Amino acid sequence: MPEFQHLLPASGLWRQDVTNWLQEDVPAFDFGGFVVGSDVKTATLLCKQVGVLSGVPFAQEVFDQCRLSVKWLYKEGDFLDPATAANGKLAVATVSGEARNILLAERTALNLLSRCSGIATASRELVTTARKTGYQGIIAGTRKTTPGLRRLEKYSMLVGGCDTHRYDLSSMVMLKDNHIWSTGSITNAVMNARSVCGFAVKIEVECQSEEEADEAIEAGADVIMLDNFSGKSLKLAAQSLKQKWTGKKQFMLECSGGLKLSNISEFLCQDIDIYSTSSIHQGTGVVDFSLKINT
Amino acid sequence: MPEFQHLLPASGLWRQDVTNWLQEDVPAFDFGGFVVGSDVKTATLLCKQVGVLSGVPFAQEVFDQCRLSVKWLYKEGDFLDPATAANGKLAVATVSGEARNILLAERTALNLLSRCSGIATASRELVTTARKTGYQGIIAGTRKTTPGLRRLEKYSMLVGGCDTHRYDLSSMVMLKDNHIWSTGSITNAVMNARSVCGFAVKIEVECQSEEEADEAIEAGADVIMLDNFSGKSLKLAAQSLKQKWTGKKQFMLECSGGLKLSNISEFLCQDIDIYSTSSIHQGTGVVDFSLKINT
Amino acid sequence: MPEFQHLLPASGLWRQDVTNWLQEDVPAFDFGGFVVGSDVKTATLLCKQVGVLSGVPFAQEVFDQCRLSVKWLYKEGDFLDPATAANGKLAVATVSGEARNILLAERTALNLLSRCSGIATASRELVTTARKTGYQGIIAGTRKTTPGLRRLEKYSMLVGGCDTHRYDLSSMVMLKDNHIWSTGSITNAVMNARSVCGFAVKIEVECQSEEEADEAIEAGADVIMLDNFSGKSLKLAAQSLKQKWTGKKQFMLECSGGLKLSNISEFLCQDIDIYSTSSIHQGTGVVDFSLKINT
Amino acid sequence: MPEFQHLLPASGLWRQDVTNWLQEDVPAFDFGGFVVGSDVKTATLLCKQVGVLSGVPFAQEVFDQCRLSVKWLYKEGDFLDPATAANGKLAVATVSGEARNILLAERTALNLLSRCSGIATASRELVTTARKTGYQGIIAGTRKTTPGLRRLEKYSMLVGGCDTHRYDLSSMVMLKDNHIWSTGSITNAVMNARSVCGFAVKIEVECQSEEEADEAIEAGADVIMLDNFSGKSLKLAAQSLKQKWTGKKQFMLECSGGLKLSNISEFLCQDIDIYSTSSIHQGTGVVDFSLKINT
Amino acid sequence: MPEFQHLLPASGLWRQDVTNWLQEDVPAFDFGGFVVGSDVKTATLLCKQVGVLSGVPFAQEVFDQCRLSVKWLYKEGDFLDPATAANGKLAVATVSGEARNILLAERTALNLLSRCSGIATASRELVTTARKTGYQGIIAGTRKTTPGLRRLEKYSMLVGGCDTHRYDLSSMVMLKDNHIWSTGSITNAVMNARSVCGFAVKIEVECQSEEEADEAIEAGADVIMLDNFSGKSLKLAAQSLKQKWTGKKQFMLECSGGLKLSNISEFLCQDIDIYSTSSIHQGTGVVDFSLKINT
Amino acid sequence: MPEFQHLLPASGLWRQDVTNWLQEDVPAFDFGGFVVGSDVKTATLLCKQVGVLSGVPFAQEVFDQCRLSVKWLYKEGDFLDPATAANGKLAVATVSGEARNILLAERTALNLLSRCSGIATASRELVTTARKTGYQGIIAGTRKTTPGLRRLEKYSMLVGGCDTHRYDLSSMVMLKDNHIWSTGSITNAVMNARSVCGFAVKIEVECQSEEEADEAIEAGADVIMLDNFSGKSLKLAAQSLKQKWTGKKQFMLECSGGLKLSNISEFLCQDIDIYSTSSIHQGTGVVDFSLKINT
Repeated sequence: MPEFQHLLPASGLWRQDVTNWLQEDVPAFDFGGFVVGSDVKTATLLCKQVGVLSGVPFAQEVFDQCRLSVKWLYKEGDFLDPATAANGKLAVATVSGEARNILLAERTALNLLSRCSGIATASRELVTTARKTGYQGIIAGTRKTTPGLRRLEKYSMLVGGCDTHRYDLSSMVMLKDNHIWSTGSITNAVMNARSVCGFAVKIEVECQSEEEADEAIEAGADVIMLDNFSGKSLKLAAQSLKQKWTGKKQFMLECSGGLKLSNISEFLCQDIDIYSTSSIHQGTGVVDFSLKINT
Repeated sequence: MPEFQHLLPASGLWRQDVTNWLQEDVPAFDFGGFVVGSDVKTATLLCKQVGVLSGVPFAQEVFDQCRLSVKWLYKEGDFLDPATAANGKLAVATVSGEARNILLAERTALNLLSRCSGIATASRELVTTARKTGYQGIIAGTRKTTPGLRRLEKYSMLVGGCDTHRYDLSSMVMLKDNHIWSTGSITNAVMNARSVCGFAVKIEVECQSEEEADEAIEAGADVIMLDNFSGKSLKLAAQSLKQKWTGKKQFMLECSGGLKLSNISEFLCQDIDIYSTSSIHQGTGVVDFSLKINT
Repeated sequence: MPEFQHLLPASGLWRQDVTNWLQEDVPAFDFGGFVVGSDVKTATLLCKQVGVLSGVPFAQEVFDQCRLSVKWLYKEGDFLDPATAANGKLAVATVSGEARNILLAERTALNLLSRCSGIATASRELVTTARKTGYQGIIAGTRKTTPGLRRLEKYSMLVGGCDTHRYDLSSMVMLKDNHIWSTGSITNAVMNARSVCGFAVKIEVECQSEEEADEAIEAGADVIMLDNFSGKSLKLAAQSLKQKWTGKKQFMLECSGGLKLSNISEFLCQDIDIYSTSSIHQGTGVVDFSLKINT
Repeated sequence: MPEFQHLLPASGLWRQDVTNWLQEDVPAFDFGGFVVGSDVKTATLLCKQVGVLSGVPFAQEVFDQCRLSVKWLYKEGDFLDPATAANGKLAVATVSGEARNILLAERTALNLLSRCSGIATASRELVTTARKTGYQGIIAGTRKTTPGLRRLEKYSMLVGGCDTHRYDLSSMVMLKDNHIWSTGSITNAVMNARSVCGFAVKIEVECQSEEEADEAIEAGADVIMLDNFSGKSLKLAAQSLKQKWTGKKQFMLECSGGLKLSNISEFLCQDIDIYSTSSIHQGTGVVDFSLKINT
Repeated sequence: MPEFQHLLPASGLWRQDVTNWLQEDVPAFDFGGFVVGSDVKTATLLCKQVGVLSGVPFAQEVFDQCRLSVKWLYKEGDFLDPATAANGKLAVATVSGEARNILLAERTALNLLSRCSGIATASRELVTTARKTGYQGIIAGTRKTTPGLRRLEKYSMLVGGCDTHRYDLSSMVMLKDNHIWSTGSITNAVMNARSVCGFAVKIEVECQSEEEADEAIEAGADVIMLDNFSGKSLKLAAQSLKQKWTGKKQFMLECSGGLKLSNISEFLCQDIDIYSTSSIHQGTGVVDFSLKINT
Repeated sequence: MPEFQHLLPASGLWRQDVTNWLQEDVPAFDFGGFVVGSDVKTATLLCKQVGVLSGVPFAQEVFDQCRLSVKWLYKEGDFLDPATAANGKLAVATVSGEARNILLAERTALNLLSRCSGIATASRELVTTARKTGYQGIIAGTRKTTPGLRRLEKYSMLVGGCDTHRYDLSSMVMLKDNHIWSTGSITNAVMNARSVCGFAVKIEVECQSEEEADEAIEAGADVIMLDNFSGKSLKLAAQSLKQKWTGKKQFMLECSGGLKLSNISEFLCQDIDIYSTSSIHQGTGVVDFSLKINT
């Protein structure tokens, strides 16, 4: 059974990020740590809100760097329902070590878990809604992530059941109007891109019409984004393109732009392979966690 | 007329953060930049949603590092109302330079502005609501900020009219139950903290009762957080403490815990100096911006 | 006309790499710079060996950081033939500024150009050899690059006319025997990979037989590496796979393993889309450049 | 019993500083380490001069990174008197591990301890002198610390019994003549500062006269620095201010400028809360330590 | 028996280099690691080509950071002859740990070992060739190393039996024509250099004639490079200089420029102390290693 | 005329150090900068104490990074005598730019200049004292520098007229008792060291007797440190060694240990080439500078 945590390499700068985040919280002295001292304590990580647990390996790294041992009672991707707990607070993990280290780790760990779980929760909510309509395709996020936190946020989209979409400007090429104007045609833009991105990187083209989509597919684009189509014309164009090109060229169709929980159903159809939206990770709510030292 | 941007030093690691954020988006090659090339173009930064503009110096740094020149039509803290624009899209700035550099800067700059403006907007909304009830005191944020982005988020709270509250563990001491247990009393905890934080750093104590507050004030705490008080008992305790100690000790009273736009009015009273809440910066929505190259 | 240099973003850590490389050469004091002083001089960058010029933007950054102005007489990708020059030394650029800065930049700039041009030259040589046999497909490098210099080396493969192949472990998935054993089947391995890499990232599978290739193609692999096939059986398997699957599944066939200038012709056939080899970038020779201050 | 070491967080960039300091001493190869080899040895850390021990956690980190185990015979803040030792050399700790690692750690660890202990010693000396005159207030350092070593030097001031004064430009606001001119008045300057520093950060105002002090206190300054007052007028002004404002406004009075061991007694009076001077940390002597491998 | 690995300090940025190299290979997610999972496996490091093993401590650090344990069957500097192994593949080490970590470490560790061993092999080959002619002096490399990898490459020259020559611009002064022109004479250039490099750093002067060499020796140069001498005139000049100055001044003679395995014998003579050439480390071949998980 | 500033390379991490030092002073917001604003002002850098000016390039970099222009009225190494100025304050430079940037740069620039000039002053004082006795040899510092500031402190020793001695563990080998024990003899230790440090790096040996010195010289040591010799026996041993070995081996003699301004004359003799002491840079006083905005 694969585990999401295995997506993070044993060694890498993501661990250094955690050091920087702890440093951000203590640029000078840890006065509270001085006061509370080094008695060994155990604390309980509590979830106070319904949601999907995410961010476990990042929180784990915070605890590790603060020399604390952790026992997780739930795992990455689990659905947490505090209503099932006695006092509405669900114990998610226990954390042990010097009291000063628990307090040092507290805020950074909670900030990470809250944000990650917020994204995983919104992601799962949207994909669940889409599945209920019978849609079997891909629900994906976007590159509208928080600067510095792309790895973390893309990770939580996966935990929530969504696709990360292209990771960055280096890992899939997206050709838009500007690329097309500057090269003279969709065909030229795709050829130029392919000459450097090579066979290993996919090319997506944003198309305003079925004709543009035809040209892009012909030129070898891997993904076609149908842009500025109404729900109805989107479905017609998608169906037409799939019928026309099946068995000739392999490509995927993507729909994007303003999609969210409240309107995605209007756009869903089986001919569209991918629906992408920043609504699952940007400006989403957080899941409320706290860390309480046991007395 | 002071400008918020002047809070950011001419030299400092915040500029390096911007480099890191751009690097995050192009770990290898900029294929799109290769395709679009270096023709000089001008783009317009458009706001598509009502909100308070924030993040200007961070976006400016993105544009500077991408060797683009910018002309801002609005300034930090301005209220943006796209409804006033012809097509519902308000021109906020124009950005000029090589087309490939515009596309490189685009996503990072927009991600920063969206997030910052989202926080400034939520902050202004809450403080405006409080002012309408006649409350003249402080509305503050918390340390529940996004790891790595504290400077940016605290900055946008200020732009929105709120107080940043303590910046980090080094810049104001907050003594809670754990600190008090470990030292034996509120008085001991305050004394221990003062012995290291010195005269230049304030000490806040979380108190569960008026008696605890009395002890904390007596011990020299600068700020008293009244914790776990209902709206009514909060107001009574605040009034009682202010009457009892005025002219004897100087201190401020803070109320925190679950405050948000929809419930803050129930808690507001003039005896409380500070209301703090993460609702103005954590899990807030974003303001939608786009960058469109002029044809 | 797209330029290779546009693959490098205006802002990014590759500029910091250059600072680190200069620092590596002067960890303490620049005694030679002290002796030679700050008189303004012009130097000529000379090529002393036949080859393809590569590394221009990296050398340019060295010169920029050393506050020197450069005028390039040849451009990235040009074929340099010193035999055409009077004394067998071809002037490639002129560099002007303080004498101490010229000497500071010299070694790092030359080390970069020598290495980059060596790779571009070997790449062009191999692709030219393949084209002479009529092969129209892709000649690609590998991930066997020098630690810390992947961007630079992949860049020079492109300049030489080759494909970079996958950039790193994050940008295309390669499934080998270990992945397959651990998941039970090729199909499972592809499914597991797809569940996290999503639609935007390609999956390649190393196959030992045509049956394995069939399973991989069926499972949705984007690229099939035929491993351990002799020249003859390779061509048969490739032909068979292309005939069997054309119009049903889109995939590319790759051949790899021990290919080099002296043996690649034995393996070339039009049914193989990609031939990959580290021989174009690992252990290749260098092109000899020098920098001479004009007297 | 709180320990000074607890001021340093378990994870943070101060550990990376130590790596950088070791790197500074071995930018290339450790030739001596090659010669001496990896036999396990024990060394004794000796103090050869009277002083207050400081820098233990920094030296500990050096030893840890060099994979050495340490046993401290004295602790942070202890008064060391080598005269009490047999040969005038006081064993302060024993350090065990590979001989090459002991020699690697030696210089950096000693450089840190010498400097830290020098500051702690000068700090304790000054505060002891002040206490002997009956002064019960605060003796503080300044921001005139060594670039890159503020944490370390402020830490040693604390160990010596002094106050660190404001840590940096972000953690207490100091308004001087330039701030006041630029805003038109002390009152404006304090208001502007408060609008951004908020309730959690203190404001200090440098005043040239009692009238200015009155305005600053009225405006809400937390600390008043009496600048350019002679010893006599200082005491008069301090007494007058305290009498005038007690029970109305809370503030502290600070005296600064040219204070040192030889002249501080002339300025001490109970109405001044803080005497600050760089003489306890800038240009102070060092305490001499050595590390000797046991034979 | 000294070990080469002891040249690398226990703590230092060379370990951070390894983290950066691993990060370069996984900027985002480790999809393959996710698929292969965390079952504990053992892999064998195999050498497939004759050569001198080098790079052990760097590969060890890769394995350590990937949480793998290693057992080396050969040690740094050993001559590896795969022909002695059953199937032509020599087991050099075994590596144990989570399968995903083995695959993560694989490419970076192999890239390091291949390159290091390539340099050590070329170095040993050249020095062995020289020794066969009876030459007892020094064979050295140059500063023409790969940017960012100087430590690693100089290290492998040592392992191969060569001298590293000067490490960087800070560690030996090399005075060439430009330094001499700018100061007016060899004597002035040496004096200026000595005034800052001091007694601890050596000075080398590039000389075009015996007269220049005389002046340099007189001026106190530590090493004289005879530049642009044919094989015959080189030997004559070297002999003449040694006879003339022995017992008066101590100096070494160096010969450099275009030396390689195929031509060095023509230049060797006992009066020349040092022959330096980049041919032992720049553009050298690599030694082929692989890592195979045991089934 | 060579300039000390030319010892610092145009590009290198020393510029990043300056950014880090400014960051250390403003980890969060620059409240004072916000208050004082961006009016353009000119400030005068004043020296208030007799001393040798040092640190100019470091201060210049601070000003550059803070976007200020500077005009220096004195140059690196000049003797500053404030008594010659009207009010005892000597104008050393003028600095122009935004008021907030002047205040930002102020403390870091002054801290650097004070420390550097303190070291240059102590260095010049000691060397002048030695010269007065007729001693023509070398006065050198040590490796007892402030962690993180070695470049800066070694630089100021040079400006003061002293030798930097070995820069770090990589740039000259120092063999002490431990190295000798571990290898069995001085001869072995020198041989082992030479096998890795090569011809380009000098070897120094600490000797307790003339016999040890003889062995070290014979073995090829470049520098002999006479350790634990009284003034008288030092001179005898030095004379004896010089007579015995002149014309046979080239070496330098060094005396170290407890040397300072007050006692160095007792040890000076022409047979000793180098006297080294940390008293010129460790625990030295500072020179007092201030920066005053012109009204």
